[in-house]
Amino acid sequence: MRETWVIGAATSRFGKLTETGREAASRVALQAVDSAGIDPKRIGYTFVSNCFGVAEHQAHLGPLVNTALGIPEVPSATIESACSSSSAGLHEAYLHVASGLDDAVLVVGAERLSHLDTLRATSYFAMGADYPFETRNGATFPGLYATLANAHQKRFGTRSEELGAVAVKNHANGARNPNAHFQKEISLSTYLASPVIASPLRLYDCCPFSDGASALVVAAREAFPRPPSEPLVVRASVRSGSIADLHDRPDMTGLPASRVAGEKAFRMAKLLPNDIDFAEVHDCFTIAEVMALEDLGFFPKGEAARAAVEGTTAIDGRFPVNPSGGLKAKGHPVSATGAAQVVEVFEQFNQRAGRRAVPRTRTALTHNVGATGGSCSVHIFSRRDD
Amino acid sequence: MRETWVIGAATSRFGKLTETGREAASRVALQAVDSAGIDPKRIGYTFVSNCFGVAEHQAHLGPLVNTALGIPEVPSATIESACSSSSAGLHEAYLHVASGLDDAVLVVGAERLSHLDTLRATSYFAMGADYPFETRNGATFPGLYATLANAHQKRFGTRSEELGAVAVKNHANGARNPNAHFQKEISLSTYLASPVIASPLRLYDCCPFSDGASALVVAAREAFPRPPSEPLVVRASVRSGSIADLHDRPDMTGLPASRVAGEKAFRMAKLLPNDIDFAEVHDCFTIAEVMALEDLGFFPKGEAARAAVEGTTAIDGRFPVNPSGGLKAKGHPVSATGAAQVVEVFEQFNQRAGRRAVPRTRTALTHNVGATGGSCSVHIFSRRDD
Repeated sequence: MRETWVIGAATSRFGKLTETGREAASRVALQAVDSAGIDPKRIGYTFVSNCFGVAEHQAHLGPLVNTALGIPEVPSATIESACSSSSAGLHEAYLHVASGLDDAVLVVGAERLSHLDTLRATSYFAMGADYPFETRNGATFPGLYATLANAHQKRFGTRSEELGAVAVKNHANGARNPNAHFQKEISLSTYLASPVIASPLRLYDCCPFSDGASALVVAAREAFPRPPSEPLVVRASVRSGSIADLHDRPDMTGLPASRVAGEKAFRMAKLLPNDIDFAEVHDCFTIAEVMALEDLGFFPKGEAARAAVEGTTAIDGRFPVNPSGGLKAKGHPVSATGAAQVVEVFEQFNQRAGRRAVPRTRTALTHNVGATGGSCSVHIFSRRDD
Repeated sequence: MRETWVIGAATSRFGKLTETGREAASRVALQAVDSAGIDPKRIGYTFVSNCFGVAEHQAHLGPLVNTALGIPEVPSATIESACSSSSAGLHEAYLHVASGLDDAVLVVGAERLSHLDTLRATSYFAMGADYPFETRNGATFPGLYATLANAHQKRFGTRSEELGAVAVKNHANGARNPNAHFQKEISLSTYLASPVIASPLRLYDCCPFSDGASALVVAAREAFPRPPSEPLVVRASVRSGSIADLHDRPDMTGLPASRVAGEKAFRMAKLLPNDIDFAEVHDCFTIAEVMALEDLGFFPKGEAARAAVEGTTAIDGRFPVNPSGGLKAKGHPVSATGAAQVVEVFEQFNQRAGRRAVPRTRTALTHNVGATGGSCSVHIFSRRDD
């Protein structure tokens, strides 16, 4: 396999798009290609993620995005894996490039839901769960993640104040991110005063519905040896799955797919959790960040909840987590989220993260979950050795 | 790249499913794995295509299918490219195996639309077109393909009787296929008496809305050297794109994406059109079969329309086309179609095609189009040399 880099990255502001998902996807794709400094004609394939295109009557985005880039003849496909869609696209892009099939591949994730009412938007999100067994019985994602939070609390005594510290941290980071959906800090008392959505999860435990688009250019080192920005060397690109339904899992204090993907990714990268400088992990709910840090081996089981309280995972902590603000504050436009995590790594590696710059940027990990962990992607990036 | 085979294949009957798309996908996936004679645990990745899962409230099928197979830990993704979705999945599966990443990959396409009324089903299909420029102005696929048919007629004098001969042939083939949606022959006079849907296309020029599911097991020769059935050697796996919108194309007598994919596929396989024994091509409308045969180089431009009239493309003709009955008679459950074409090649190579057996089965080509050719996949298969 060839050494494979991310050489270009771009994101829209997350929140409310005043353009269609197709327009946002095309615009951000153009920006990513521009940031890579390459002729679009060098792109060999385009992976578009767009789970809710149906809500815009548009379900075949690839040729439209490629036409906007002036490369209509380039093949494309839509790739989806619930909330881990564009990281699934990145995995395919990695393989296209690493295998030698293509020298450069475009990954785009875009989502627009804000034109729908909340009930309709919720029903779209919930299609990532198991319809007859979960959704139809009323278990949408806040309820499902609340079930996980309850199991975690019961086993490890995880306190609301600890979940709240995750929310406070990620809002503090989002306040420093001009592309974040929520750019305001919150206090622990604001968190504790917010209404319970699904016990024990409160309003501020939950990520928002966001519109947004993000894009990456993945390329072979040998084909593009001198990109204009510091590239991300893809050290690991791993996906995993697990039983979708919570009620069929022997343990609900973590996500088995995260454990499997994490172990495989560290093996592929020949690195250990201690070698990673910072991470963007999937915090659709605060409990999800806690579980991710434990499942990936950054903290022993039952010990990650304290990390935010103690400042370990703050931007200036020992191991910064979600400097972008995470899904919690940056926002969660389903298909854009996985690519956006990598955009954050790209900005951090290139000293473009402004007031949310983390101290060390030699290595980073991104962790993106589909639904309640039926799917998971983990990527590990490092700087060039030279 | 490693030599890559299709070693297992299965399809449901096309038409009306009495189960959900998820159930059909799981059932047919199990059958495909069983036909490959492998332990499901050897599967490294699952690609599911299911464009209209949203119509069943279920948009994250991969983990559900894998759980049904007893392999929930295996990663999966949904891959879509309008009507060329499962051939896009086959392309990724080919790359996963050929590159050495996985020894075996499962490809599943499933669709269920029959529970929707015709207007709703039409609106789902039409999401493959360009919404603001085409669909919103009333141009759904019968109108768009009628536009292509008009251009072809104007340039080459293509006659209704010639399009009718394609319909008559494919219905004759479908009548010999126990899995076809329509298993009845039609006469040319029945064709000519059928109502005009979008001039010049009549009812019998159009494929039906079908439910259905198909699945393939793609595997490395070196990992599975002795499969129970005659494997299909993947000699070419190529995808292409083009401007989605007809009004932006300089020529409407063919599909540029088919030409590009065909040329690349023959180059990759080191074969010429004359070397191919039979083909399954994308005949969502009769004109689409005519254009495909010209675009792929099987007939000079303007000469393919006569092929069905003259019997050249009949099952016992010089070059059988769509022995399965094609989309026209076998049916067109969007996401299942691309994989189903390969199932037909598998059955033909294994002498399981009964009364629709073609005379020569050393090589075959499958051609699968997304929408009006915004996307296209071409695969070429041959027998083992040994």
